[in-house]
Amino acid sequence: LNDTTRAWHLKSRPTGMPTLDNFELKDAPLAPLQDGWVRVANSWLSVDPYMRGRMNDVRSYVPPFEIGAPLQGGAVGKVVESKAEGFSPGDTVFHMQGWREAATGPSETFNKVPPMPVEDHEWLGNLGLTGATAYFGLLKAAEAKAGDIVFVSAAAGAVGSAVVQIGKALGMTVIGSAGGSDKCAWVRELGADAAVDYKAQPVLKGLMAAAPKGIDVYFDNVGGDHLDAALATARNNARFAICGMIDSYNGGDPAAFRYIMRMISARIAMKGFIYTDYLAQMGDFYRDMGGWISNGQVVSRQTVLEGLEATPQAFLDLFTGGNMGKMLVRI
Amino acid sequence: LNDTTRAWHLKSRPTGMPTLDNFELKDAPLAPLQDGWVRVANSWLSVDPYMRGRMNDVRSYVPPFEIGAPLQGGAVGKVVESKAEGFSPGDTVFHMQGWREAATGPSETFNKVPPMPVEDHEWLGNLGLTGATAYFGLLKAAEAKAGDIVFVSAAAGAVGSAVVQIGKALGMTVIGSAGGSDKCAWVRELGADAAVDYKAQPVLKGLMAAAPKGIDVYFDNVGGDHLDAALATARNNARFAICGMIDSYNGGDPAAFRYIMRMISARIAMKGFIYTDYLAQMGDFYRDMGGWISNGQVVSRQTVLEGLEATPQAFLDLFTGGNMGKMLVRI
Repeated sequence: LNDTTRAWHLKSRPTGMPTLDNFELKDAPLAPLQDGWVRVANSWLSVDPYMRGRMNDVRSYVPPFEIGAPLQGGAVGKVVESKAEGFSPGDTVFHMQGWREAATGPSETFNKVPPMPVEDHEWLGNLGLTGATAYFGLLKAAEAKAGDIVFVSAAAGAVGSAVVQIGKALGMTVIGSAGGSDKCAWVRELGADAAVDYKAQPVLKGLMAAAPKGIDVYFDNVGGDHLDAALATARNNARFAICGMIDSYNGGDPAAFRYIMRMISARIAMKGFIYTDYLAQMGDFYRDMGGWISNGQVVSRQTVLEGLEATPQAFLDLFTGGNMGKMLVRI
Repeated sequence: LNDTTRAWHLKSRPTGMPTLDNFELKDAPLAPLQDGWVRVANSWLSVDPYMRGRMNDVRSYVPPFEIGAPLQGGAVGKVVESKAEGFSPGDTVFHMQGWREAATGPSETFNKVPPMPVEDHEWLGNLGLTGATAYFGLLKAAEAKAGDIVFVSAAAGAVGSAVVQIGKALGMTVIGSAGGSDKCAWVRELGADAAVDYKAQPVLKGLMAAAPKGIDVYFDNVGGDHLDAALATARNNARFAICGMIDSYNGGDPAAFRYIMRMISARIAMKGFIYTDYLAQMGDFYRDMGGWISNGQVVSRQTVLEGLEATPQAFLDLFTGGNMGKMLVRI
């Protein structure tokens, strides 16, 4: 049995901004089904900024992608064949074998979605890694609470748009940054009290105007000038959740911080986190996020590219602001 | 009654590194003693890096010094006249009216030293602001505990040398950085497991050699390259206490960080603090530090300049590495 599937492979490690040449679409072997295994046909693939880090040959919280090997990432699909108890053809699952059409593996590596009335791709978005990152970062890493003035960067992105809505659902004042007037308009539609267009003005200038009293919480997806602006405007005992620094993922000059000494005078606490640090509390996340989705307090928006072939382009678009909301590939 | 005292005044705000020209020694009026007041003759003056920040005209945790007004700072002296209950001539007090010979004021602004068999200047050092900063920064802001691998910068300085000794007293592995072989030798004498001479090699290179397994805690007195090296070598869930950034106090290019993204992958927590955040726990500090001093686990070393005239020079020397241990002026 020489079963295969079409899958995107890492052809070469990007230097700086990745290009389409770094990726190669070719057949990958699919291990035959053993007892306890399932076969899944993917219907939605997630591309996320953190994947850029795995394309470098450096130790991190996940091992680097190997050159010549298939890429990985979040995906949702349907079971098409099962030798595992509790899994039947037609079941919807989310799993980490993305960037490909089909996947096989032990059923433990595939998660059947809970019975909730949401579209399948939501398990890659507000009910998936994206939403959990927003939820735990805001509420646990930054310990945000009702009444706080919250600043979130990349607020029109997948994680940022969830942060805006969670903050508003919980009674916070929320200021989001985004690039361009369309994105800023959407950030305000999501309920943000103010949106800072960092393409129209220096982010610090915009943030000072939007938050004249300063900020209590910063949710960082960007790093660089955004983080520096948050340092400049932090009130006493501000808490920063450091989630991502997309400004730096593709190299360039190291970020310089003019206001880092305010960490001392304002007693700022900064905490790096990954949502998996809070897996034990996923029950709280599903309960709260499920409630907000069903009552309309959290809505989702997707930027969808069609077809497996489009996956690298979808990934590249993350770094040029090509997405509003969650970037997805539909197969 | 036109009582006066000789006092150092801020003549002009420094730009970049301060110079002697920024300071002026002249008579300052001394308010006459009212009921509840005391008059104190200073015997020891403290100069500390944080004072540089007060010479800028910016909002911070303490108001800026005013041009033309007397400077302030920690001091120890003897009561020479008292209209306050509980204060008698000859009592030793510590207070914040330094940079001058004599001081008057309400007795609440003067603290009688506890009856401990230590030299008077210790109330400006290991039993004063310096020691409290080391103690609360290491144990509260960084939550350091036995078994942790601790890196402390400016380890031959006043605060750093206290951090080294507290860490060793509590069963930590301690690596200190200092500039030059004499200072590094003293850091090792204090019990540090290793000393990194940042003048002999890049601090990151030295730190990687001294801590091949990485660090759990960083106590930052320096910022810049030192903080970046700590980010580079931090183990998972490392905690950084941000106490000072002497590298940046006099301006220059804003600090750039090549390794700041490791905050996410290593889940680093950084916290800025000032010892006054922990005033409610000063009893713990006096108990522990008093014990360590009396059993010899914490020793002190001073660099002493003689005479009120020397105060600005003592202050300037802080920024050129002119002190080993606590920098003091004896009157």
